[in-house]
Amino acid sequence: MTEYVTRTRPHPGGARGRGRAVPSRTDSGPDALDGHEAAAILEETRGFVDPVLRAAIDSLPGSMRRISLYHFGWEHADGTPAAGNAGKAIRPALVLAAATALGGPAAGTAALPAAAAVELIHNFTLLHDDVMDRDTTRRHRPTAWTVFGDADAVLAGDALHALALGMLAAHPHPASSAAVARLADCVIELCAGQHSDTALEKRGPAEVTLDEVLAMAEAKTGALLGCACALGALYAGAAGEDVEALDAFGRQAGLAFQLIDDVIGIWGDPRHTGKPAGADLAARKKSLPVIAALGSATPAAVELAELYAAPREQGDDVERMTLAVERAGGREWAQEQAADRMARAVSELARAVPDPEAAGGLLSLAEFVTRRSL
Amino acid sequence: MTEYVTRTRPHPGGARGRGRAVPSRTDSGPDALDGHEAAAILEETRGFVDPVLRAAIDSLPGSMRRISLYHFGWEHADGTPAAGNAGKAIRPALVLAAATALGGPAAGTAALPAAAAVELIHNFTLLHDDVMDRDTTRRHRPTAWTVFGDADAVLAGDALHALALGMLAAHPHPASSAAVARLADCVIELCAGQHSDTALEKRGPAEVTLDEVLAMAEAKTGALLGCACALGALYAGAAGEDVEALDAFGRQAGLAFQLIDDVIGIWGDPRHTGKPAGADLAARKKSLPVIAALGSATPAAVELAELYAAPREQGDDVERMTLAVERAGGREWAQEQAADRMARAVSELARAVPDPEAAGGLLSLAEFVTRRSL
Repeated sequence: MTEYVTRTRPHPGGARGRGRAVPSRTDSGPDALDGHEAAAILEETRGFVDPVLRAAIDSLPGSMRRISLYHFGWEHADGTPAAGNAGKAIRPALVLAAATALGGPAAGTAALPAAAAVELIHNFTLLHDDVMDRDTTRRHRPTAWTVFGDADAVLAGDALHALALGMLAAHPHPASSAAVARLADCVIELCAGQHSDTALEKRGPAEVTLDEVLAMAEAKTGALLGCACALGALYAGAAGEDVEALDAFGRQAGLAFQLIDDVIGIWGDPRHTGKPAGADLAARKKSLPVIAALGSATPAAVELAELYAAPREQGDDVERMTLAVERAGGREWAQEQAADRMARAVSELARAVPDPEAAGGLLSLAEFVTRRSL
Repeated sequence: MTEYVTRTRPHPGGARGRGRAVPSRTDSGPDALDGHEAAAILEETRGFVDPVLRAAIDSLPGSMRRISLYHFGWEHADGTPAAGNAGKAIRPALVLAAATALGGPAAGTAALPAAAAVELIHNFTLLHDDVMDRDTTRRHRPTAWTVFGDADAVLAGDALHALALGMLAAHPHPASSAAVARLADCVIELCAGQHSDTALEKRGPAEVTLDEVLAMAEAKTGALLGCACALGALYAGAAGEDVEALDAFGRQAGLAFQLIDDVIGIWGDPRHTGKPAGADLAARKKSLPVIAALGSATPAAVELAELYAAPREQGDDVERMTLAVERAGGREWAQEQAADRMARAVSELARAVPDPEAAGGLLSLAEFVTRRSL
């Protein structure tokens, strides 16, 4: 992948981006794609998208605005201003990078409402999923439902969902109707994915196949990353086959992301993840490395199955489970699968954007999400 | 209001509607607007909209389809086909009637996706509201969350929400972007209304003002009826001021609807309402007649306040509360308010559609919802 030199910026053509020195492989050697490039793109994306997001959320009625500002980290629970910690902006960065890759900086500018809309949809699903999954922590803070109650968290999610699709429709662009329809289809896939996730959790670990968990991960995570890239392509006026290739690029990168996320869920450092160590195992989560390990026909798989079947207790069990998943090959499988998905993503990208320079932003974003530090 | 003769049909211009004899005031005397006219419009609307709704729901992934088909009454809980009992179709009928009133039968046909979208939005909010309100019965059947669980009912609502806006965007029409934006804004108002409803329920009856409850009712019920009419006007290519007049017509009719609905919630016949008699009072619901009664400064208001403050018990208390609301003037106030709102609705309608014949369908629908049998 040495042919991808990241010179093209995914920002909407502002002077701010243009004036900044852009590192390339030649400038900085083999470490150029180690995440600094993507980190700069993400930071820049936040700079462009946050004001649009903030203006959209400020347009909500008071009750919905308050919950949303809390969820995005712009307000504390008591309504006082907060520094903001609204996540990594990977999805809006993909929208802008895809638009820029296929249509240049002007397309990036035009795609800004789509970037904000995708981020609003992502956050609507987080609000709802946290209620359903009873997750109490998100981005190192108590989740919205723990602060405002289930009903208000669901309602704020509904409001962000409507805000996202309404904002896209309200910004005149030849692609906006197709973008609304595509983003709405994606939401339906996300709902089906979340349903599968809940349904799989209710079954015994031995009754769940790897294909089922992969399909669920594609719907839950791949679909929106694919849609983000496809929306960028739509706003660049790309041909139908290129829109689909960008969707496939994002989906495969999304699966790679989920595989790595599951690895982090077991072996990640709590100081970075914001979750207690081994929380996924303590909760008997059927994550991808676990299901792969259980299907490995190894002695470690048998041990893991016994540990997963035992009553839930805190303590040493998590350590034994972690070792068993590793010895059964779950970690190695997940990391190899992630690499394989990334290769597929790169191949789809090369089909739609043959110019390595133009594809650079998208590639470094995809590599960033699969190279997060543990 | 004798000038409104219902000759114009709100159906999308099919032979089916055109061929049918249409009653007029001249034909049938003073009873022509007793609901038979509207009932025929509603039945016809179901005939046009149900196939569109059904096709949209059939396009959902299996899990979301199953919950939706149950909610709409097209399937039993076990997945076997059911006769269907998807409500009265008042909102889609308003879309088609408004489009026809302002643009003739061709506009009615063009507005069919909007009619289906409004009905999908209505049902998404029912699915979510039933979860939040812990309502166990809807249209004489167990609510979706009691059958499928909270998470799946919320997800199916999310899917119907996306389906509605996506369907509007996917059907090419000059009005479709404006319609998506307007319907999305309406969803946000519905969310704020549901939040207010929940928030008001948590406060003591004496701390809630009539204005607050009226504002909540406008957001929860008036907004979507207004939006339905406005969408019809948009699909008829109406001028901005006519779109707003139609919105105001629907909002005021919606408030009249809610006032009558609250009256029915206290004095309605359980055989028609599908709810136990006095359920609203037993649940200490702060419905409009109750808040009006509590603010009446009558001896009955004092008695009602004491009954509402007492621990919740079944039995004679409901009868005493019913009498107290009535003696304090709550019923009379609500019925007068409903008539007043209807007069405002009619005045808005006459502004946008001065031709009484063209306005007939909308008028009979509005009168139908405020004349439901107790």
